[in-house]
Amino acid sequence: MAPRAVVLLSGGLDSTTTLAVAVSKGYEAYAISFDYGQRHRIELEASHRAAKSLGARKHLIVSVDLGAIGASALTADLHVPKARSMAEIAEGIPVTYVPARNTVFLSLALAWAEAVSAADIFIGINALDYSGYPDCRPEFIRAFEETANLGTKAGVEGRRFRIHTPLISMTKGEIVRRGLELGVDYSITHSCYDPLPDGKPCGSCDSCLLRRKGFEEAGVADPLISS
Amino acid sequence: MAPRAVVLLSGGLDSTTTLAVAVSKGYEAYAISFDYGQRHRIELEASHRAAKSLGARKHLIVSVDLGAIGASALTADLHVPKARSMAEIAEGIPVTYVPARNTVFLSLALAWAEAVSAADIFIGINALDYSGYPDCRPEFIRAFEETANLGTKAGVEGRRFRIHTPLISMTKGEIVRRGLELGVDYSITHSCYDPLPDGKPCGSCDSCLLRRKGFEEAGVADPLISS
Repeated sequence: MAPRAVVLLSGGLDSTTTLAVAVSKGYEAYAISFDYGQRHRIELEASHRAAKSLGARKHLIVSVDLGAIGASALTADLHVPKARSMAEIAEGIPVTYVPARNTVFLSLALAWAEAVSAADIFIGINALDYSGYPDCRPEFIRAFEETANLGTKAGVEGRRFRIHTPLISMTKGEIVRRGLELGVDYSITHSCYDPLPDGKPCGSCDSCLLRRKGFEEAGVADPLISS
Repeated sequence: MAPRAVVLLSGGLDSTTTLAVAVSKGYEAYAISFDYGQRHRIELEASHRAAKSLGARKHLIVSVDLGAIGASALTADLHVPKARSMAEIAEGIPVTYVPARNTVFLSLALAWAEAVSAADIFIGINALDYSGYPDCRPEFIRAFEETANLGTKAGVEGRRFRIHTPLISMTKGEIVRRGLELGVDYSITHSCYDPLPDGKPCGSCDSCLLRRKGFEEAGVADPLISS
């Protein structure tokens, strides 16, 4: 029987590629997405398409009201920055930072992993191109892994939870190339933080700019833009 | 200005006493409760009464759908064990264990702490009388604290998050006595995992039995029973 892995899936470039990596390694994928009050809630549809397209065994959308906690441009009524340079994106912590988001998401992924008897959790964080989020750093991931093994029944009973971060040291271009090798259809993904009323990407938020950089570096057209 | 503390509050004996301890130490208390699909959802009313009675500055109820994740007698349609001995309660991990619950709750408390500029988080876990939950152990708490400091903007910027567990080595009797010293009105609290249709405690689940033990050890009547 294939080992099970829980994969955090937003439906964007990185997490969709991560799902493809998990599947390519032989895991039976349990994809988990979060309805957390994000203004780009349309990404949940993308996550559903990605889970289906890549053959996830299950796809669970968990509601968690981070909007009640507030203090981020992604959940509150704050302005999403536009047209920043790569230097600006790489520097400091942006207003799109959601307090402790990856800690919350990994905790919920851990709960599901424990419930479905999975020991492996995949998360598509990337420390190279976007160092602004503290919860995308390897030392955070190691600390969370320790917490997971101490704070669960499964951990106490001897299961070792492992948090996999296959993209952590890849450039955006390498991520796109890896995904294309694995057959990812990027036309079904969604990256924009602040989509237009018709659902199309704004083209100028940090997430759109990093996505564009990825496709440029990979030397291919983004099917979401060209289509 | 008083320092702010986020206090995890279920409205039960332990968390209500913990809130009283935090207030007595001079913290401005931000009480946080969770609507997580628990069958004893009535505890949310108790948490509201406790927050008000003890002068919490704010009380936030965050919805998080642990029921979707399943696998616990507290959220799924499983039988809540009744009339167990203290030895049985102390041994092993019960079916009322919710996967990774304290990791999820602490993560959400951390997110709110970051949003309201609090460095201190109080949780009423207790390792002495009820060792069955892995996420009630001191080593888990230290690992989570490390995760919190690595995975947040505030931690990176130099704030040190501290997780306070004032009850961790107290007996249930000591907890009741401490709360009474601090003026806690236990008639407004709720402990039962499986309340009767009229909201009254069942009297025989683990939580009711531990509560009874606390009042017996303290040598006082439980106002919830005698009233």
